[in-house]
Amino acid sequence: MERITPRTLSGFMELLPAKQAKLEKMMEVLRRTYASYGFAALDTPAIEDAKILLAKGGGETEKQIYRFQKGDSDLALRFDLTVPLAKYVALHYNDLAFPFRRYQISKVYRGERAQRGRFREFYQADIDIIGDGKLDILNEAEIPAIIYKVFTGFGLKRFQIRVNNRKILNGFYAMLGLSEQSGEIMRTVDKLDKIGAEKVSALLVDACGATKEQAKEILDFIAINGSNEYNLLRLGEYAGRNEMFDQGLSELKAVTDNLAAFGVPEENFAIDLTIARGLDYYTGTVYETTLLDHPEIGSVCSGGRYDNLAGYYIDKALPGVGISIGLTRLFYVLDEQGLLNPDLPSAPADALVLPMTADPAPAIALAESLRSAGLRVQLYGEQKKFKQKMSYCDKLGVPFAVLLGEDEIAQGKCSVKNMTTGQQITVTAQEAAQHILSALAATGPIILEK
Amino acid sequence: MERITPRTLSGFMELLPAKQAKLEKMMEVLRRTYASYGFAALDTPAIEDAKILLAKGGGETEKQIYRFQKGDSDLALRFDLTVPLAKYVALHYNDLAFPFRRYQISKVYRGERAQRGRFREFYQADIDIIGDGKLDILNEAEIPAIIYKVFTGFGLKRFQIRVNNRKILNGFYAMLGLSEQSGEIMRTVDKLDKIGAEKVSALLVDACGATKEQAKEILDFIAINGSNEYNLLRLGEYAGRNEMFDQGLSELKAVTDNLAAFGVPEENFAIDLTIARGLDYYTGTVYETTLLDHPEIGSVCSGGRYDNLAGYYIDKALPGVGISIGLTRLFYVLDEQGLLNPDLPSAPADALVLPMTADPAPAIALAESLRSAGLRVQLYGEQKKFKQKMSYCDKLGVPFAVLLGEDEIAQGKCSVKNMTTGQQITVTAQEAAQHILSALAATGPIILEK
Repeated sequence: MERITPRTLSGFMELLPAKQAKLEKMMEVLRRTYASYGFAALDTPAIEDAKILLAKGGGETEKQIYRFQKGDSDLALRFDLTVPLAKYVALHYNDLAFPFRRYQISKVYRGERAQRGRFREFYQADIDIIGDGKLDILNEAEIPAIIYKVFTGFGLKRFQIRVNNRKILNGFYAMLGLSEQSGEIMRTVDKLDKIGAEKVSALLVDACGATKEQAKEILDFIAINGSNEYNLLRLGEYAGRNEMFDQGLSELKAVTDNLAAFGVPEENFAIDLTIARGLDYYTGTVYETTLLDHPEIGSVCSGGRYDNLAGYYIDKALPGVGISIGLTRLFYVLDEQGLLNPDLPSAPADALVLPMTADPAPAIALAESLRSAGLRVQLYGEQKKFKQKMSYCDKLGVPFAVLLGEDEIAQGKCSVKNMTTGQQITVTAQEAAQHILSALAATGPIILEK
Repeated sequence: MERITPRTLSGFMELLPAKQAKLEKMMEVLRRTYASYGFAALDTPAIEDAKILLAKGGGETEKQIYRFQKGDSDLALRFDLTVPLAKYVALHYNDLAFPFRRYQISKVYRGERAQRGRFREFYQADIDIIGDGKLDILNEAEIPAIIYKVFTGFGLKRFQIRVNNRKILNGFYAMLGLSEQSGEIMRTVDKLDKIGAEKVSALLVDACGATKEQAKEILDFIAINGSNEYNLLRLGEYAGRNEMFDQGLSELKAVTDNLAAFGVPEENFAIDLTIARGLDYYTGTVYETTLLDHPEIGSVCSGGRYDNLAGYYIDKALPGVGISIGLTRLFYVLDEQGLLNPDLPSAPADALVLPMTADPAPAIALAESLRSAGLRVQLYGEQKKFKQKMSYCDKLGVPFAVLLGEDEIAQGKCSVKNMTTGQQITVTAQEAAQHILSALAATGPIILEK
């Protein structure tokens, strides 16, 4: 037989089982947390009509999208979960109850230039809340609570949810008479972390048409950077001069005021006027989330409020708010940084049952009874030497081996061997299940901060 | 703005939230059951090198596969989960412990002719156990137990796992001197349910080169159809004439003997000599699963034992056994037949918390405390009339509304309204959580047999 060398395409993540187990645990946290806030699970096709995905058009998207013909159809793979959501809401508008809250954790595709840590197929874990015509600010206030629950669910403590409001920025630029350039200004200010204040100031003058004085005013404004209380106080000084600014400030207050009720500690939240999010379609609150000890990773959860989700597909005002986690990249970076908890159980089974008699029936029944008690159990029937069986158990990282020989069967018991300590006890099946379950109960977080 | 009419491609399933919730519950049963038998979750890319996916070649696959260029790359979407598994095992051979047990629940793609109930994107839910060189028969014996747990997990009772062994068939055809035609004969016999004995007999003579007597012998043989005990007894009459036959019979006995230990009731299992599975690569035990009241659906879970998983990619003997559930089609058919339990909770939340005061903080804190108790809670902040709020709750199917006005806050309580009965009680947050959790505990199965 002619052989083809197996390979996985570059830019596509394919994990070994133990690492996959950790990614699965992160997905479980996401699903559980999103569901606990009343988001419905949604699943849209990975392939859509290319015309629909490219309704908005735009350079990078058109270049990166996987697009192909099949028969007469012009097809493409989704490059995010927002455009398919917009299509979904427009298509099923009459069947949905608004506000419509959905989560989706699915793969998206971008044919980017191959680069270390950049993926062409990656998971996004999104939530969005879509209103019909209107959407209350309370929804925007709830988002930081959800981000907080997700990241603490992963085991993180040292992260910060950074929040701003585009109306504050737009209102402020309007005060300066720079409304028309506000988009360009925000994109420039967004580079502050990367290129520094001086270069931003120069770009504001050269590329955005601000005067030197305006550039200074802008930099002073975005430098407001104290406690939430202090920031709101300082922003208050600008109030009364522009209606949009005032509305943005009131929204930011609504988001900040309810943090305690939502259970978000002050240290995990910050008003940050430098955040604008590049995309034009955000219109209110915007969110970024950074790991305090790893600023180089950038934002690991971003999003914001928008006014018009599905204008390309339907003549309805559908405002919304949403966030997205680039799960594949986040997982890759956490792994690179050595932050995945090495002690997190990642074996496919909690116990490996080893029949030590010719008739496997007693071992089969034992395995079934351990499963009924809630354990994940692998029955190992291969004809190998005992040492090889133990070495298999070790290699998989299965924490307990359960041995069943004639002696145990005669006593109505089984022998449970702790693979870490080597300790072995002979107990009933029920006791074995309890013993293993209680040993497994004390597992640590998925991510281990150093 | 120019609008594009939103649509979802034909052959692609896209569900409304309540129906999606039922599919998610089926996926949960699959994940939980597969994991309980010690299978590791695996996730391979949806896109692979076309050359790798098409290593085997073959007509239908080449026609149906989604294949496209991106840059210089010749890419294709996976059309099943077996070929990517073969690639995975070959590629990561040195990093895996064998037997390697994995499950994967992922979408696959086939550009079939559009047809009612046929999908171009659909979920397969597969398990496979791969040995390195050898694989014990106990693994084959375990498969019916897993199938049984999955389908009873869905709520089904009236189903049958039908089992045969290709060695028995091959051995039998060898006894008749028809070894060379055995593949063709099996494909012909496979049509028995569809075209009847007479036509099969004619085809055996005309297309497979059997004599009339041989055709009769074949039909007599596959007509053996009693209890497991009776069938094994009848098969025993053929023993001693062909080594392969004898081995197959001993394997079939090993699978059948341990059913009781695995907890599989006799009525959910049958030896069925008509089953061969069309694919050439099965070499031992083969499985089909049918819903007894819906034979027209065909097999809803099939698979078998094979000797050579990854011969196209690696010079290693990798025998295995696996089964696959075509989840999307199964879900579609169950829905069409009206078998999805209409009373299964499918709302995105267990409770809708309605703030009835200007300050939302108490309602926010209440919602958070209900979530901590394990409930899925949506906080509803829209400025609407009370009647509209109730109608939203109804439309989503959320079973409980939790109201929090000045009176309740003053008492340290909240009002819980059962949306089905209309009954309303005023209790503490903790009591509310207990009340709702116990009401939700008594939910029925996903599938409701009639």
